[in-house]
Amino acid sequence: MTFNFNNSKKMALMKKDKSDKESWDKPIVSLCEKINKKEDYFTTSSCSGRIVLLKESVKKLPNLFIYRTHNKITFKELKKILANAGKEKEMIYFKQEPCLVVVSCKNLEKQQNLLNKARESGFGKSGIISTKNKRIVELMGSEIISLPIMKKGDVLVDDDYLKLLVKESNFRLENGWKKIEKLEKEFF
Amino acid sequence: MTFNFNNSKKMALMKKDKSDKESWDKPIVSLCEKINKKEDYFTTSSCSGRIVLLKESVKKLPNLFIYRTHNKITFKELKKILANAGKEKEMIYFKQEPCLVVVSCKNLEKQQNLLNKARESGFGKSGIISTKNKRIVELMGSEIISLPIMKKGDVLVDDDYLKLLVKESNFRLENGWKKIEKLEKEFF
Repeated sequence: MTFNFNNSKKMALMKKDKSDKESWDKPIVSLCEKINKKEDYFTTSSCSGRIVLLKESVKKLPNLFIYRTHNKITFKELKKILANAGKEKEMIYFKQEPCLVVVSCKNLEKQQNLLNKARESGFGKSGIISTKNKRIVELMGSEIISLPIMKKGDVLVDDDYLKLLVKESNFRLENGWKKIEKLEKEFF
Repeated sequence: MTFNFNNSKKMALMKKDKSDKESWDKPIVSLCEKINKKEDYFTTSSCSGRIVLLKESVKKLPNLFIYRTHNKITFKELKKILANAGKEKEMIYFKQEPCLVVVSCKNLEKQQNLLNKARESGFGKSGIISTKNKRIVELMGSEIISLPIMKKGDVLVDDDYLKLLVKESNFRLENGWKKIEKLEKEFF
C-alpha cells in the first residue's frame, strides 16, 4: 500500500494522546497546534523538556522511570523524590532532557525547511530521520544534564550540590522554552 | 556553481586535519578509512567519544575547553586536572560526549542507507542534516554524562563521587567504541 500523507495526518490527529502522562505539556502546545494547522506537517510526538530520575541500565527494562516532570523543580521536591526512591540496585541517574518535537512532513523540501528553521531557533540536535513515507524530522534542543545521583538508596552528592543542580536544570528547561517560542514566532 | 560530489571528496581527502589536536583518534580511524574508500561517501569530521572539562556559558566564548581526551581517564588524572583548572568564574562542566561521524553522501538514497545502518548499530542520535550539495549525515551515539563539577576553584563533589564518575564515563566511552566496531562490521 502506498503511503498517503493526508490520510496519515487525519488518523494521527484523531488518535488519543498515548503518552504516559496523557496530556501535552504546556510550553509546547501552541507550537504543535500551529504545526498541525499547516497543510504539509503534523506532529507525532513532543516534549517541552523534562527533568527525570531513572534507573540506568544497558538493557531496556520496563519501569525505568522513578520520576518525571515537565515543570521546574525545587530543592524540597527533589529531596522528597530521592527520599522515596527506594533502594534500587541499579544506578539512578538524574537527567534534564532537552525539548523535542517529532514532525511528519509532506515532502523532502518541507523537511529541509523545517529543519533549517529549527536549527536557527536553537534546536541544535535536529535531523531528518526518514526520507520516505512519514518523512520524519526530529527537532531537539541541546540543553542536557545527566549524572549518577543515587545508588542502593544513598544519595551520592550533598545538599549544596542538589540545590545547584536544581538551579542549573531549571535554567536549561527555561532556555528550551525560549527556543520553542522562537521557533513558533519565526516559522509559523 | 553546481556542487560536484567527486571534486568535493577529492578536496576533502587532500586537506590537512584541522582539528585542534591534529590527529585522528584511534578507535574511529578504521571506520573513517573504510567510509572514505566507498565511492559514495566521505567523512568531514569524526570523534570516537570524549571526556572534557569546559566553561559553560550561554554565549559562545573562545577557549571554553579546560581539558579534553579521547581516552579513558583515571581518578588520579581527574584530580590533577581539577587541581590545575584555576579559579574560573564560570561554572565548569564535566562531560562525557558520544562518538560522532559526519559524512557527506553522493545522493539521498545513500544518506538514508547509512543513517539506517548507524541507528541499527546504536548511533541513536543520528540524522540527516542537509539534503542538498554536501548531503550531510551526522551519526551520533547516545552515551552522555554532563554535570557541573567546579566553581571558582572549588570541586563541587567528593572523591568517592569522582571515582564513580570516572568509572561511569569510561564505561560509556567503551560502549561507544563497540558501536563504532559494530557499524564498521555491519556496513563496510
